[in-house]
Amino acid sequence: MIYFRSDYSQGAHPEVMEALARTNLEHTDGYGIDPHCENAARLVKELTGLTDCEVHMMVGGTPANVTFIASSLRPYESVIAARSGHAYFHETGAVEGTGHRVVTADPVDGKLTVEGIDKAYAEYQDEHTPLPRMVYLSQPSEIGTIYSKAEMTAIAEKCRELDLILYVDGARLGSALTCGANDLSLKELAQLADAFYLGGTKNGLLFGETLVIKGKALNDHFRWMIKRQCGMLAKGRLIGVQFEALLAGGENSLFYRIGAHENALADRLRSGLAGMGYSFFGSSPTNQVFPVLPAAMVKELEKAFFFYEWAPEQDGYIPIRLVTGWGTAESDVEAFLDAVRTLQNR
Amino acid sequence: MIYFRSDYSQGAHPEVMEALARTNLEHTDGYGIDPHCENAARLVKELTGLTDCEVHMMVGGTPANVTFIASSLRPYESVIAARSGHAYFHETGAVEGTGHRVVTADPVDGKLTVEGIDKAYAEYQDEHTPLPRMVYLSQPSEIGTIYSKAEMTAIAEKCRELDLILYVDGARLGSALTCGANDLSLKELAQLADAFYLGGTKNGLLFGETLVIKGKALNDHFRWMIKRQCGMLAKGRLIGVQFEALLAGGENSLFYRIGAHENALADRLRSGLAGMGYSFFGSSPTNQVFPVLPAAMVKELEKAFFFYEWAPEQDGYIPIRLVTGWGTAESDVEAFLDAVRTLQNR
Amino acid sequence: MIYFRSDYSQGAHPEVMEALARTNLEHTDGYGIDPHCENAARLVKELTGLTDCEVHMMVGGTPANVTFIASSLRPYESVIAARSGHAYFHETGAVEGTGHRVVTADPVDGKLTVEGIDKAYAEYQDEHTPLPRMVYLSQPSEIGTIYSKAEMTAIAEKCRELDLILYVDGARLGSALTCGANDLSLKELAQLADAFYLGGTKNGLLFGETLVIKGKALNDHFRWMIKRQCGMLAKGRLIGVQFEALLAGGENSLFYRIGAHENALADRLRSGLAGMGYSFFGSSPTNQVFPVLPAAMVKELEKAFFFYEWAPEQDGYIPIRLVTGWGTAESDVEAFLDAVRTLQNR
Amino acid sequence: MIYFRSDYSQGAHPEVMEALARTNLEHTDGYGIDPHCENAARLVKELTGLTDCEVHMMVGGTPANVTFIASSLRPYESVIAARSGHAYFHETGAVEGTGHRVVTADPVDGKLTVEGIDKAYAEYQDEHTPLPRMVYLSQPSEIGTIYSKAEMTAIAEKCRELDLILYVDGARLGSALTCGANDLSLKELAQLADAFYLGGTKNGLLFGETLVIKGKALNDHFRWMIKRQCGMLAKGRLIGVQFEALLAGGENSLFYRIGAHENALADRLRSGLAGMGYSFFGSSPTNQVFPVLPAAMVKELEKAFFFYEWAPEQDGYIPIRLVTGWGTAESDVEAFLDAVRTLQNR
Repeated sequence: MIYFRSDYSQGAHPEVMEALARTNLEHTDGYGIDPHCENAARLVKELTGLTDCEVHMMVGGTPANVTFIASSLRPYESVIAARSGHAYFHETGAVEGTGHRVVTADPVDGKLTVEGIDKAYAEYQDEHTPLPRMVYLSQPSEIGTIYSKAEMTAIAEKCRELDLILYVDGARLGSALTCGANDLSLKELAQLADAFYLGGTKNGLLFGETLVIKGKALNDHFRWMIKRQCGMLAKGRLIGVQFEALLAGGENSLFYRIGAHENALADRLRSGLAGMGYSFFGSSPTNQVFPVLPAAMVKELEKAFFFYEWAPEQDGYIPIRLVTGWGTAESDVEAFLDAVRTLQNR
Repeated sequence: MIYFRSDYSQGAHPEVMEALARTNLEHTDGYGIDPHCENAARLVKELTGLTDCEVHMMVGGTPANVTFIASSLRPYESVIAARSGHAYFHETGAVEGTGHRVVTADPVDGKLTVEGIDKAYAEYQDEHTPLPRMVYLSQPSEIGTIYSKAEMTAIAEKCRELDLILYVDGARLGSALTCGANDLSLKELAQLADAFYLGGTKNGLLFGETLVIKGKALNDHFRWMIKRQCGMLAKGRLIGVQFEALLAGGENSLFYRIGAHENALADRLRSGLAGMGYSFFGSSPTNQVFPVLPAAMVKELEKAFFFYEWAPEQDGYIPIRLVTGWGTAESDVEAFLDAVRTLQNR
Repeated sequence: MIYFRSDYSQGAHPEVMEALARTNLEHTDGYGIDPHCENAARLVKELTGLTDCEVHMMVGGTPANVTFIASSLRPYESVIAARSGHAYFHETGAVEGTGHRVVTADPVDGKLTVEGIDKAYAEYQDEHTPLPRMVYLSQPSEIGTIYSKAEMTAIAEKCRELDLILYVDGARLGSALTCGANDLSLKELAQLADAFYLGGTKNGLLFGETLVIKGKALNDHFRWMIKRQCGMLAKGRLIGVQFEALLAGGENSLFYRIGAHENALADRLRSGLAGMGYSFFGSSPTNQVFPVLPAAMVKELEKAFFFYEWAPEQDGYIPIRLVTGWGTAESDVEAFLDAVRTLQNR
Repeated sequence: MIYFRSDYSQGAHPEVMEALARTNLEHTDGYGIDPHCENAARLVKELTGLTDCEVHMMVGGTPANVTFIASSLRPYESVIAARSGHAYFHETGAVEGTGHRVVTADPVDGKLTVEGIDKAYAEYQDEHTPLPRMVYLSQPSEIGTIYSKAEMTAIAEKCRELDLILYVDGARLGSALTCGANDLSLKELAQLADAFYLGGTKNGLLFGETLVIKGKALNDHFRWMIKRQCGMLAKGRLIGVQFEALLAGGENSLFYRIGAHENALADRLRSGLAGMGYSFFGSSPTNQVFPVLPAAMVKELEKAFFFYEWAPEQDGYIPIRLVTGWGTAESDVEAFLDAVRTLQNR
């Protein structure tokens, strides 16, 4: 079986494993206060060009999202997210578990719009409704689409206007930054957002994300919040060590190389399938590919490939999701295209 | 500098690292549903002799404790813990963060007593007080002491009598099970407790604990709770892989071998220091040693050894904490004893 | 100025005030444990025909809704409500404040449908989503429409099928039960719902609702929950005294008489305005009337009458809300109709 | 039976009932935004001498305490209270229900001390513990004792030093202000505290407290918090109307007259019992009296009088609690003293 189900199905990139092995016998203090975490934070600051920020080593994306929301919002405040957003749909009510409503806006091609934010905000303005105070979005979105520089700038300006905190979930940010369609650099993103994280789990690490929070106010006692939300790792240095391996080398770093590798293979899938006449669900240019294939073909493909059906069959077709990861090989992609070609010609 | 500060200052035991490296390129599903987690759960069931239980792979001790408490208690219920208990004192209000009071009882030699439980329970019986519904304790306790079979049995019987869930935090259970003074086997403990975890983080893993919950009711939708409490790891198999390495081999497993190693070195520290005439804070027989040393000697020792001062100076003496880990060497222990001997003879 | 803004703009019905005055000097125990609360509970049981239930004296509708939700749901569970439902829209995130998501369904004429429940339920079935466990609806709905016996029965059956608790917010239940279009008696409603409240605040009391919860499980330690949610009134008997005055006399009780009075005046408004050619927003047969009037007329009417504009102007028309209360007089209604007539003829 | 069980066993003082009756037919807007609430707020400002504050109409003491705590603290912060404090002991974990720990300090004569605050604060300073951010105390304390001007000033200074919010629960503040031993005026208290409430429920109202919060920051969006915590009363004006009746007339107001009445009767109980040779539990000078009486006498007295036994029998004696209320008559007190005298002489 060949695996296109997710970009977190394997362990860590060999360079990351090597770093863990190399540092394994060192003794350091726990809880993310050690030279490796310090160094990883320094690398994040260099890559983002930020100085007035703190970088927090988080175990995963959900803890990063939820801890930041719980820390930044007062109890009566809410967060605006796309109806399809991960924080809304895929976290078992973890945000509500901290007492906050997620106010949903209808996405366009998987993305929040200025109009959607405006509408959600306007509806929640009297004292009988939970006041929006944050916009949550992910780059790329749940369906792999990316916010252009113009779109992100417009959203950031809207956030400033309405006094909303702009938070960017960067679970697959490596793929967004390195895809051909992208015109929003990490440094530009870092200027626009109030907080965001660089995803490691879906970008070659065993686990771990670096959460970047700008300014004094939003960072106030954030480590207390991490601990209170059960997100502080005893051997915190493990996140630091992995991000050192991931981020060293700037734009030639493993972070960028993995993204480029994934995108190249995803592009090959896209061009191959498009060449055979298939269309796609959404316009993802990143490492998630959503071809809409004949239902019978999908059932055949499932015998040799692991992937998700993304939506129920409609008119004889099923949209599926193919994800490329750091360990996906060119031969995996070609095998898939061959299989489709064969099934098409039957 | 020689490190006696904690048993989580290094990475993982080499056999664990080897297992992670060996399985690194495998593809599996995420979130702890994979053959490695299944196999680790099977090993836990064998070691504990339990059949009617589920084994959940948790990232750390705080998530294990807090998720179990949040899942098992109704909103008005509280948990009884020793004033010195980890869940009370060292988790930044994480339990209260899920809406529950921790009702404290005064510990004796670091341990809860039947009398303390009775007293705490009796005080919280009317509808204006949060009803106790669980007893939280750790084996060994925060100060390394262990509950004897008789003590744990008496507490378990009291819990049955008062309809209290008995939960055992096993962060350092490996050390408790393998110390000379212990007369409570893992299988016996598993019979007495309603839920407990086998600690990995402080017993040779990078991270991870296996939380064992008995019976259908307490397991109901527990995976929803893990996700909601932000504790579900994307690459969940990492915990399974590590516990396979830790637990394979039953009582000859790495889990027991690491405990025995730590205890042997801790015993050497204890006998060496006792032989020089020093006394101890508490009666820990496990991998934490709390000698009470002259303040001036402590300050000298701190130049070559990392450890915590456990309490403020009193009458010229300071109790310190020395912890042995999987990577502590006999030479580390002898170096410490030599240093004390030299300072004593100055 | 004549007041059609709400049915809670005046104090209590004179018969209720008289009961409060008559019992004022009595000494009773606090917190709702007293003969008046007992007697009120007995009256509720008689009216509803229920025996296996408990009746809780609640200060208001929001505490009744939120305490019941917080008491009945486990942390990962959610409640299905109409997008327009009060619990969703008008309680400043109070439900989320107890950790639960409100899953919304699109209403039809202000009401939940079996299809809407099915769809919301189906979408939230895996462990990454908050599992629906309750259906919240109000009778009448936010826009005054009522569930027929057939509709409520179908919803109740759907709830049994999906293991959902059916909760009915009865803030204006008095008006629903006594309106001409209603075919669902209180006793029938009581059979179908798992819990519901008889509204007092909007039906002639100073404040207070009687929350009826059926069965042992849902009532378990509910008084602890009331206290924990800050909803226990020291002089709890005040709610009992008022409901004694409201409910004594069965179907001739003040509860029914107030409903009938409000509906008669609302019907007069409806027929008068329909006779002048105006249409209505929704099909409310209860004490809320939603005529759609010319914008200029609305602005004129606001000089002499207090009411809410229910939605923004569209095509020159504004839907407004007129509410009749226990103290609304026939002359108030005629004055309004006269004013409309005059403005229409200008 | 004569009632000394509490000061909330009767309805409202006749002057308050009269105000409710007089205003009953008025129409006003709901939720505490109306001329009566405005006027009550004005009276509170006059009595306290404060200008930069907001006055919130709260239904009861628990909602006032808990809403203020939930509004003022960030999630990782805790509140220091006396072990015997109401917020800690008698609210079924309502504070923890909003996610915050109550850190307890041992009281002296029922009162917090500067030393107790210092000790509690010092123990909770690292990131693994919930940071204290507020001091909660009540004037008078749970056992009727009062903070002197010197004591309250010292506590307030300590709070400023440690950046702690000083919150005063004034459930029985009327009694404290008017007792002979008091040297701390309302205006002085208002200068020292950051927030406090003037209790109505235990001082002659049906229900209601006026919560005074100083400064912009602590008031920010507080009404959203009231609603979110389910504490907003639909007919909010009822609290305003009652406080108008209670507070009009400054130091000759009903608020002060009720306090003086209660204290005079309590003093008579104290001097009468002291004259017969009995001692007291604590040194309450307010409307709660805690005589320590022979156990057999207590059992006899319970046949004619309602009161609480405050603690279990010890050495043949039981401390009881007698509370005087606005409706307690001189004859009630004399009847009690007569009964004691008779039983003593048997």
